[in-house]
Amino acid sequence: MDNQTYLAGVEAAIEAYYQEAGISDRLVEAVLYSVRAGGKRIRPLLFLQMVEALGQELTPAHYQVAASVEMIHTGSLIHDDLPAMDNDDYRRGRLTNHKQFDEATAILAGDSLFLDPFGLVAAADFSAEIRIKLVKALSDASGTLGMVAGQMLDMVSEGQSIDLKQLETIHANKTGKLLTFPFVAAGLVSEVPAKTLLKLQKIGELVGLAFQVRDDILDLTADFEALGKTPQKDLLAEKSTYPALLGLEESYAFLEVTLDQARQLLAEVTNEQISSIEGVGALIERLRLHA
Amino acid sequence: MDNQTYLAGVEAAIEAYYQEAGISDRLVEAVLYSVRAGGKRIRPLLFLQMVEALGQELTPAHYQVAASVEMIHTGSLIHDDLPAMDNDDYRRGRLTNHKQFDEATAILAGDSLFLDPFGLVAAADFSAEIRIKLVKALSDASGTLGMVAGQMLDMVSEGQSIDLKQLETIHANKTGKLLTFPFVAAGLVSEVPAKTLLKLQKIGELVGLAFQVRDDILDLTADFEALGKTPQKDLLAEKSTYPALLGLEESYAFLEVTLDQARQLLAEVTNEQISSIEGVGALIERLRLHA
Repeated sequence: MDNQTYLAGVEAAIEAYYQEAGISDRLVEAVLYSVRAGGKRIRPLLFLQMVEALGQELTPAHYQVAASVEMIHTGSLIHDDLPAMDNDDYRRGRLTNHKQFDEATAILAGDSLFLDPFGLVAAADFSAEIRIKLVKALSDASGTLGMVAGQMLDMVSEGQSIDLKQLETIHANKTGKLLTFPFVAAGLVSEVPAKTLLKLQKIGELVGLAFQVRDDILDLTADFEALGKTPQKDLLAEKSTYPALLGLEESYAFLEVTLDQARQLLAEVTNEQISSIEGVGALIERLRLHA
Repeated sequence: MDNQTYLAGVEAAIEAYYQEAGISDRLVEAVLYSVRAGGKRIRPLLFLQMVEALGQELTPAHYQVAASVEMIHTGSLIHDDLPAMDNDDYRRGRLTNHKQFDEATAILAGDSLFLDPFGLVAAADFSAEIRIKLVKALSDASGTLGMVAGQMLDMVSEGQSIDLKQLETIHANKTGKLLTFPFVAAGLVSEVPAKTLLKLQKIGELVGLAFQVRDDILDLTADFEALGKTPQKDLLAEKSTYPALLGLEESYAFLEVTLDQARQLLAEVTNEQISSIEGVGALIERLRLHA
């Protein structure tokens, strides 16, 4: 199955949820505007391919879980772009939500994308025990115990000098926890033993870290077209980044080592059944960058 | 048990959640600033007293469910007050969240209060089946199927002439569904039969309606001190209200009839065991206004 097929399933799950939500057309329009903007959809892909790597066959319920994490991610992008936050006019090469609609609409669209996914997961066809674990993991990854706390730390640190440990705490929360969720969730729906669940969490943390280092490198080295958004905005915002703290060359090496560790653990949890050219193995390989 | 005792339990449940959330102090501070601003806390009170009216003894898990709906309500107030929304400087007699902190912080504090309660409910000591039903009901009441959709409808209708049916749709979603949740949730945790659950939902809808009619009347007739916020802002914002559409006297009468219906159904679900001077019966009685 190629990535497009997975993504079509994720998008169908999100669209199905909003097709039944006929109260405010404008709200649904604003929500779907940002959902349809695309992006790499790395979180749902990691989840679906990790589920397969654990030997499970995908069902509609898996696509609903994949959709839920993409919805929260999309909601966070809408709020991040607001004038009071990063004040971005473009996202993925298109106008940001508040530029296309207005600020109030963008705030509400983000709110919806935070509140709706829990209902979607709650209705997925897994046992109640599995669903409640997914809800807990998703809430912990995204709210005051995860993503939102990381965004606040990031904001407070702007223009300040922070050390590598503080930078890691910011990213472990801001992006790491929502990138860890796909791995943990794959373990939960596959009912793996506790030891395997811990390894899956560690893989997620490593992938999350790699993702951020990669993003920081690309912000410095790529142009608007490759990035789909304004480059060097970290530099302009005086944000602490891995290249700023480690140097560019060290950052490339750090990315490499982090991905190697993730691949090693992935081989362990799947009993070496995973290759580097397909599925979740290939997704992780694709995060590598060459100086 | 007087209302203060219930509220102390709700506040303790919220504070306990955030005491363990030690990632961003500023985020927790901003969240708790608005939580501690007080207010009537009508939603948790209705839930706790409805649970008791159904013959159950309150446990810490009930307080966690009560806390969850208050958290979502508080998050919605923070976002409602933002400059791009209602642009309010005061709420409950204190500076609004974005005035006390800043806009970005207020956006994130609201986001947290939308994402966290699902984790809180997921960890409550009820069966997984009950918890997952609570999560679904809370999500449906608050997101694109409920509160947020109602806020969008309300915003779009500003300055426009709408009829009574449209006004009812706005409020049934904007405030009605989150006021209905306490009654439905009380039924879910008490495992009442489906027929009783439907009656509880109807009571919630009637109370939600009464609440809004009452609010509209008070906005017109009360002063800053009694209201704890700027009065007549509906009038200034050219919002459609019940007094504007029905006239003030008719609105008083409509409130009366709505509350009578709620009381009648309440007597049915509790087998007449509820009096008008205590518990949920008294809460509903207190919504009456005399012209």
